[in-house]
Amino acid sequence: MNTQTREIIVEFPDIVVTKKDRLLIAGPCSVENRDQLFRIAEAVRKSGIRFLRGGAFKPRTNPYSFQGLQEEGLAILKEASEQFELKIVTEIVDASHIPLFEDTVDIFQIGARNMSNFHLLKQVARVSRPILLKRGFSATIEELLMAAEYLVSGGNTQVILCERGIRTFETATRATLDLSSVPIVKKISPLPIIVDPSHATGRSDIVASMALAGLVAGADGIMVEVHHNPPKALCDGLQSLTLESFQSLVNEIERLKPFLSV
Amino acid sequence: MNTQTREIIVEFPDIVVTKKDRLLIAGPCSVENRDQLFRIAEAVRKSGIRFLRGGAFKPRTNPYSFQGLQEEGLAILKEASEQFELKIVTEIVDASHIPLFEDTVDIFQIGARNMSNFHLLKQVARVSRPILLKRGFSATIEELLMAAEYLVSGGNTQVILCERGIRTFETATRATLDLSSVPIVKKISPLPIIVDPSHATGRSDIVASMALAGLVAGADGIMVEVHHNPPKALCDGLQSLTLESFQSLVNEIERLKPFLSV
Amino acid sequence: MNTQTREIIVEFPDIVVTKKDRLLIAGPCSVENRDQLFRIAEAVRKSGIRFLRGGAFKPRTNPYSFQGLQEEGLAILKEASEQFELKIVTEIVDASHIPLFEDTVDIFQIGARNMSNFHLLKQVARVSRPILLKRGFSATIEELLMAAEYLVSGGNTQVILCERGIRTFETATRATLDLSSVPIVKKISPLPIIVDPSHATGRSDIVASMALAGLVAGADGIMVEVHHNPPKALCDGLQSLTLESFQSLVNEIERLKPFLSV
Amino acid sequence: MNTQTREIIVEFPDIVVTKKDRLLIAGPCSVENRDQLFRIAEAVRKSGIRFLRGGAFKPRTNPYSFQGLQEEGLAILKEASEQFELKIVTEIVDASHIPLFEDTVDIFQIGARNMSNFHLLKQVARVSRPILLKRGFSATIEELLMAAEYLVSGGNTQVILCERGIRTFETATRATLDLSSVPIVKKISPLPIIVDPSHATGRSDIVASMALAGLVAGADGIMVEVHHNPPKALCDGLQSLTLESFQSLVNEIERLKPFLSV
Repeated sequence: MNTQTREIIVEFPDIVVTKKDRLLIAGPCSVENRDQLFRIAEAVRKSGIRFLRGGAFKPRTNPYSFQGLQEEGLAILKEASEQFELKIVTEIVDASHIPLFEDTVDIFQIGARNMSNFHLLKQVARVSRPILLKRGFSATIEELLMAAEYLVSGGNTQVILCERGIRTFETATRATLDLSSVPIVKKISPLPIIVDPSHATGRSDIVASMALAGLVAGADGIMVEVHHNPPKALCDGLQSLTLESFQSLVNEIERLKPFLSV
Repeated sequence: MNTQTREIIVEFPDIVVTKKDRLLIAGPCSVENRDQLFRIAEAVRKSGIRFLRGGAFKPRTNPYSFQGLQEEGLAILKEASEQFELKIVTEIVDASHIPLFEDTVDIFQIGARNMSNFHLLKQVARVSRPILLKRGFSATIEELLMAAEYLVSGGNTQVILCERGIRTFETATRATLDLSSVPIVKKISPLPIIVDPSHATGRSDIVASMALAGLVAGADGIMVEVHHNPPKALCDGLQSLTLESFQSLVNEIERLKPFLSV
Repeated sequence: MNTQTREIIVEFPDIVVTKKDRLLIAGPCSVENRDQLFRIAEAVRKSGIRFLRGGAFKPRTNPYSFQGLQEEGLAILKEASEQFELKIVTEIVDASHIPLFEDTVDIFQIGARNMSNFHLLKQVARVSRPILLKRGFSATIEELLMAAEYLVSGGNTQVILCERGIRTFETATRATLDLSSVPIVKKISPLPIIVDPSHATGRSDIVASMALAGLVAGADGIMVEVHHNPPKALCDGLQSLTLESFQSLVNEIERLKPFLSV
Repeated sequence: MNTQTREIIVEFPDIVVTKKDRLLIAGPCSVENRDQLFRIAEAVRKSGIRFLRGGAFKPRTNPYSFQGLQEEGLAILKEASEQFELKIVTEIVDASHIPLFEDTVDIFQIGARNMSNFHLLKQVARVSRPILLKRGFSATIEELLMAAEYLVSGGNTQVILCERGIRTFETATRATLDLSSVPIVKKISPLPIIVDPSHATGRSDIVASMALAGLVAGADGIMVEVHHNPPKALCDGLQSLTLESFQSLVNEIERLKPFLSV
């Protein structure tokens, strides 16, 4: 892999995000219904954010948990995308969904549970969309880069890595956010890396602190979960920012930007 | 899930394995060529073992590592199966391979990296073959049982769990074999559980000790890697038993059986 | 360190325990009062066990938890030792207690929390008593052997190692019992190693299974917690065997012995 | 414990450090000789830092590794303290050293290996000096706070906590710096908490990034290792900043301060 740093994190005809800009992605854990997604999408767009996350196909540990709205979820995401001029980031869990996703999704996400699903990586590598590759719960930094290599060697160089915490004995957080991975990745790979403090910590009360820390550690962006009514969220309510606290975080990030190095 | 213990681990028209028998599975990490597989298959069969493992589709961390012989590997496995009257256990990495596997494979293995690939679990649940479900590197016992529930609730109750070690800070072994999972699973689930000391430890010098310990802890069987020439194996040579040390282990297991409770 | 295996695990004028015998140690987490200790000591002795454990100085995470009876606890242990002809195994937490311990204690235990308290190791190395050195929660096997080297190089070669589990993400057990450490230690060190399944698992329902598995893995002995009334124990009740289940375990160990190699 | 936040981190007749100031501590892993310590102390002082770290009694995993200059090291620290008007932070490993330390040391450090050495904590609690309590390798945040409670309940409320990384499976860093502990501690405890990125990461190339990230996460200070000639350091050379890179980090911290909240 060429280790020269890429200046552009992600590029679309109408939006180019450079490392200097930082890539900010926000939205709910999952698309629950049209009203929910539109309320959140509107707030995200008002904050100046252009990338909306939201799960349609949800990989859930418990087979009896809410599995996502699936095709219907994608349709709602597409509508929100058009109405609010937002790019859609959502997780793909099976290669057979690729045609469906190509119609709607701007950034394909490979979730932590699928980081080592090499068959999926090989198939998604052929897609002409950027890919957000999340670090597995128990993946080393080297294994994350190897997984990215499945994408790059398969033809897709628009890979964005995402640190989202690793499993440790600590139970105060859902996972242990390993921010050291950020400067390490930047030393050995040209790929951009962003941080997801929502899934890592599982606690909305420290998401903002860890988001800012991630940026100062060198992250090229942040992905956070936002919900207009976290206690009623169908998944991950404990880690979702309210619309107000999300706006505060966006303000804090703007305030911090002059300090950040490119 | 019904918590009454199943007496039969796995059942075929010509072979029934009960908990009292224990399920023993052996073979190489991957099918390398016809000669290699046949030499190992012959030795396995001579030891009285009826289940041959061997990878055809290999999920490898590094995209440039040997990825398995794939369809050709399945064909060699089928031939060995017929010649030596062995049942074939091999890993499926993508749902699109199901028809191919149904023609050759007696027990479908879901590997550790795919334990939380719920999409694959849902598809494989529809297959009328027993499924060997390996614990993920970083999966809790509860998550292993939840993954099994994807199979059971999807219609396949012939699930065999497999403890194969979890990731910890210890570097003397490849993973840390968590034998406590064996008696715990047996207390809360009717599913059989076997132990894979080869992948857990990554060291052939302690595989036999841990295999015997696993059986005494209550495991319903053992899966081990065997190779006629471990230093030349295309993968996992360090953890493969030689044919001689494999025969010794089989003898030790026979000697231990009177001490095991059903 | 000389890697020739020691045949004798521990030796006193009246009791010699060889590897063939195995070293069995049992008793309560802590000495609570004379009546409690005597009831348990009597049952331990009746089972044929000659080594009684019991904490007098307890290192507790919470400063407001019961800290042990201290000097009074030692006095009760001494009395029980004389009445039932038992050797006493108890933990020393500070070098200043050495003279006090030398009067009462037959085997000095260094607890998991103090395995890397090198100052304590250096002081205890000068004592002419066997030392039971427990593996730290987060110590590698190599670090355990290095800690032992503080004792051996300090002049005390009567060291007995003890595997008691390491910290991992798994929450079904208190720690993860790493039985692989047993055969590994035996390959690289002449020191005996025993297993403590009580502290490792924290669950009395799997202690016997893991004790037997430990012996089959090659352990030179077992240490377990026993209490005549576990629900009322002042500490670690959940992991203590009742007197009845303890007697069953002793019977199981006797039944297994012919299978065990020396 | 009173959860009202303390405004003063540490206070001496001539120096008061508030949370707004942040506490910066720098120096070598160990005192090697007078010339070494003086060169580093001079550079530390020139950077405006008033707290010098340096080990005199070193807890080393290997008994044959350099164990520190001990009393001679304390004497050199005292001399440097006087010459450069620096406060001395050094680790105490045994309660019997308290009188010796009281004569020289301004902040008593309890190292990670001794966080759960409750006997030492109880003794040091009686000292009228601030105590820097490092988180154990495998201690949860709750256990760190419980260890602090041994100090506070023992009479010493001048406790400063220190996050220094926990043990995980990741091998790219020496430990995994758990910066989430910083905002969590601040929500549930009035005690200040600083970050030690040198011991956590073990790599000088990411120490500055993680130091800045720690401050943004809310840390009340930073402790880093500095050496005038890292490749020749008797311990921890790989993680020591050079005098130049240390000065750069101090400059970066100054540049960051306006963005930090109090």
